[in-house]
Amino acid sequence: MGLTIDTAMLYNRFMRAEIISIGTELLLGHIVNTNAAYLARKLAETGIDLYHQMTVGDNPLRLYESLRRTLDRSDIVITTGGLGPTVDDITIRTVAKLLNRRLIPKGVKWLRNKVGTAPGLIAEHKGKIIICLPGPPRELEPMFANDALPYLRKKSGGWTLLSRAIKTTGLAESQVNAKVKDLLDIKPPTTVGIYAKLGEVTLKVMSKAKGKKAARRDIARVEKTVVSRLKNNIFGYDDQTLEEAVGKALRKKKRTIAVAESCTGGLVSSRITNVSGSSDYFLMGTVTYANKAKEKILGVPKEALKKRGAVSKEVAAMMAKGVRKLAGAYIGIGITGIAGPTGGTAKKPVGLVYIALVTDKKRIVRECRFRGSRKEIKFQASQVALDMIRRNA
Amino acid sequence: MGLTIDTAMLYNRFMRAEIISIGTELLLGHIVNTNAAYLARKLAETGIDLYHQMTVGDNPLRLYESLRRTLDRSDIVITTGGLGPTVDDITIRTVAKLLNRRLIPKGVKWLRNKVGTAPGLIAEHKGKIIICLPGPPRELEPMFANDALPYLRKKSGGWTLLSRAIKTTGLAESQVNAKVKDLLDIKPPTTVGIYAKLGEVTLKVMSKAKGKKAARRDIARVEKTVVSRLKNNIFGYDDQTLEEAVGKALRKKKRTIAVAESCTGGLVSSRITNVSGSSDYFLMGTVTYANKAKEKILGVPKEALKKRGAVSKEVAAMMAKGVRKLAGAYIGIGITGIAGPTGGTAKKPVGLVYIALVTDKKRIVRECRFRGSRKEIKFQASQVALDMIRRNA
Repeated sequence: MGLTIDTAMLYNRFMRAEIISIGTELLLGHIVNTNAAYLARKLAETGIDLYHQMTVGDNPLRLYESLRRTLDRSDIVITTGGLGPTVDDITIRTVAKLLNRRLIPKGVKWLRNKVGTAPGLIAEHKGKIIICLPGPPRELEPMFANDALPYLRKKSGGWTLLSRAIKTTGLAESQVNAKVKDLLDIKPPTTVGIYAKLGEVTLKVMSKAKGKKAARRDIARVEKTVVSRLKNNIFGYDDQTLEEAVGKALRKKKRTIAVAESCTGGLVSSRITNVSGSSDYFLMGTVTYANKAKEKILGVPKEALKKRGAVSKEVAAMMAKGVRKLAGAYIGIGITGIAGPTGGTAKKPVGLVYIALVTDKKRIVRECRFRGSRKEIKFQASQVALDMIRRNA
Repeated sequence: MGLTIDTAMLYNRFMRAEIISIGTELLLGHIVNTNAAYLARKLAETGIDLYHQMTVGDNPLRLYESLRRTLDRSDIVITTGGLGPTVDDITIRTVAKLLNRRLIPKGVKWLRNKVGTAPGLIAEHKGKIIICLPGPPRELEPMFANDALPYLRKKSGGWTLLSRAIKTTGLAESQVNAKVKDLLDIKPPTTVGIYAKLGEVTLKVMSKAKGKKAARRDIARVEKTVVSRLKNNIFGYDDQTLEEAVGKALRKKKRTIAVAESCTGGLVSSRITNVSGSSDYFLMGTVTYANKAKEKILGVPKEALKKRGAVSKEVAAMMAKGVRKLAGAYIGIGITGIAGPTGGTAKKPVGLVYIALVTDKKRIVRECRFRGSRKEIKFQASQVALDMIRRNA
C-alpha cells in the first residue's frame, strides 16, 4: 500500500511548505484534522512539497516558537485556526510579533471570509510566505482555493502534480492487484497506487510535470493500459460515485428501475436517489421487513416464504419481479438477507444476502456472504446491487 | 466554539506526550490522520497532556531529528506508521539508533499485532517512554487500547479526564447556547463545550480529577443542570444515535411504524433499520417519487396531487395515512419535498419539505425549509422526521 514516490529525487526542485494546525480541541482529539489532508492534497497538486505538519494548542508562546522554527527551514508556512474573536486572535497577534509589527498594516494581503467572520491573510517576510487561514473547513476551503492557491501557483513556477483515480467494483483488491502488478512498480514522475475500501478498489495514477498538459499526457498513457486490463470493472473516475454510474447507465439505455429491499432497509433506494435527476429513472422503492408486507405489497406467495424462507434465492427473485410489476419498471431489484448482528443460523448465517435483478429478458440472482457490522453488511449489499444494475442496464 | 480550558493551570501536573505520525501519504493528503485524533482523545482520558503532534514523511533522517527533539522536551513519544515490511521498518531502525542499540533487544516490550503483521513496541530510555504503533487504524487501535493504554495508566499516576456528550435535536445552536450560556463559562477542572453539526447540537461536559469516581461525580452535577434546561430536546448521550433513540421510544411504548418517503428517497427507512432489532417495530417503507406510485400504492387521491401539488401539507399527510393503513402500523410517516438542486420554483423552492406524522389520535405536519446540497437536505429532513417519531411515539 501507499505510493512509492522517491521523495528525495522528486521533491528537491520544489518549494517547501509546512502546516501549523492551531487548536487545543485538536490536541484533545475532539475533532479530526481534515484541514491538514485537504491542504496537503492541494499543495501536492500545485507541485509544492509539504515537508512537515504539526499541531499546537491555543498557546501564543508555543505558536511563536513553532512559526519561527518553521520559517527558518521552509519557504511557506500555512497556519489553520486561531483566528477571529472567539479564540482571541492568537494567530494574527503572533504573526505580527514575528514580523516585528505592532498591528499588521499594509504589505499583507487580507483574505475575505465569505462564510464566517474572521479574515485570513498572506504576508511575505524576508523571502518567506506566511498564510493564515480560519479553522472551520467550510471557511478554510473556499478561502484557500479562491485566494491562496492562485497566489501559490504563481510562486511555485509552474510545477504541477496531477492525479487520476480509476474506480472499480466487482473485484477484490488482490484481483485488481494481480491485473496491474507491473504498473504498481513504475517509477516517478508517473506512479500508480492501489487503495481499497469496502466494496470498491481504486487505482490512483499520479504524475509530476512542468505544466498540466505534460502531466495529463503522462497520466493518459498509463490510464489507457489500466483501462485495457480492468475493462468494465471500472465504473468511474475521480469523484464519480457508483450511484452516478448507475444513473448514467440507466439514462443511456432509457431504462427505469424499481427496488424491493429487505435487509438493506432502504439504503439502495437512498443511494440511487442521492443523484440529482434520479426521478427520471427511479420509479419506486419498497422496504418490506415483515413477510406479510412481502406478500401483500410485492405478491410474494406465502408458500415460497414458508418453503424456502424469506432469505432465499426464490424470494429475492419474486421480490424483484413483484416490485417491477407494481411500478411498471424495466428493471426490478430484490434484496433479502441477514444484516445481523442477531438473526443468523448455521445454515443462514449473518451476512448471507441474495440479490436479484429481473427484466423481461434477464433473471440474475447472486448469493453473497459479507462480513462486518450491520451497517457494513448493508453497505456491501447495496454496492453489489448497484453494480448489478450498472452492468445490466 | 472550542473548549475554554486553561492549559497552563490544568496541565502542568500531568505527563507530557507528543505524537509523531509517519507517512508520506499523510503529507500528500491521500489519507486523513484519524490516528492522531484517536490517540489524542485516549491520552486526554488518561490525564496525559498531548503537547504537540507532528507529521513527517518516510524519511529516517527527519524522523531521527524529530524523535530526538521530542524526547528532549516531553515524557512520552508515540509514533504511528513506518512499521513492518512494506515501508522497510524505518521506525524501529531509527528508534534503535536513537537508543544506541544495533537491534532492539531485551529491555523493550514488543506489542503483538493481532490484526496485521508488524509488531509495535514500548521502550523506556533515560526516564522517557517511546511507544511505536502501526499505521492502519484497525491495527493501531486494539494494540493501543489493550497494551499501551494500561501501561500508560499506571505511569500517569491515576489522573483521569472524563467527558460526557449530551446530544440534542430540535434546537438551533444559538438556541442551545442561550439556554446554557452560563455553563459554557464555568472554569476547570469541569468545563462545558458546545458543538453543532447538521441537525444536531451536542454539549460536552469534561472533568479532570484524581480517579474516575471523582470525575464522574463532577460531571453528574453539571449534567443535571443541563438536563433541567434542555429537557426532552436531549435524545441521547455519548455514542447514542438518533435512530437508536427512536427505536428505544417505539419499543418502550410498543409502537410500530411505517414510512412513506419521496424526497428523502429511502434514507429515513435506512436509518431506522440501521438499528439491530428494528424489525420488531419497523413494518414497512415505501419510496414513491412518481405521482402515479403515490396514488397506486398509498392511495393519495389524484385530485389532491393536482390541486395541492405533490409537495404540499395535504399530500404529506395522505402519504402518512396511506402507508400506515397499508402496513397496519400505529404510526405513519409521510415526507415530500424538493431536494434539489433542480426542480425548485419561486413558490416551492429547493429545500422545502413537508413531514407528516399520523396516528389514530394525532396528525402533525411540519413545513421545513432546509439549505444545503441535495444530500444535506435529505439528511436534515430525515433528522426532523426521526425526531418527530421520537417525540410522538
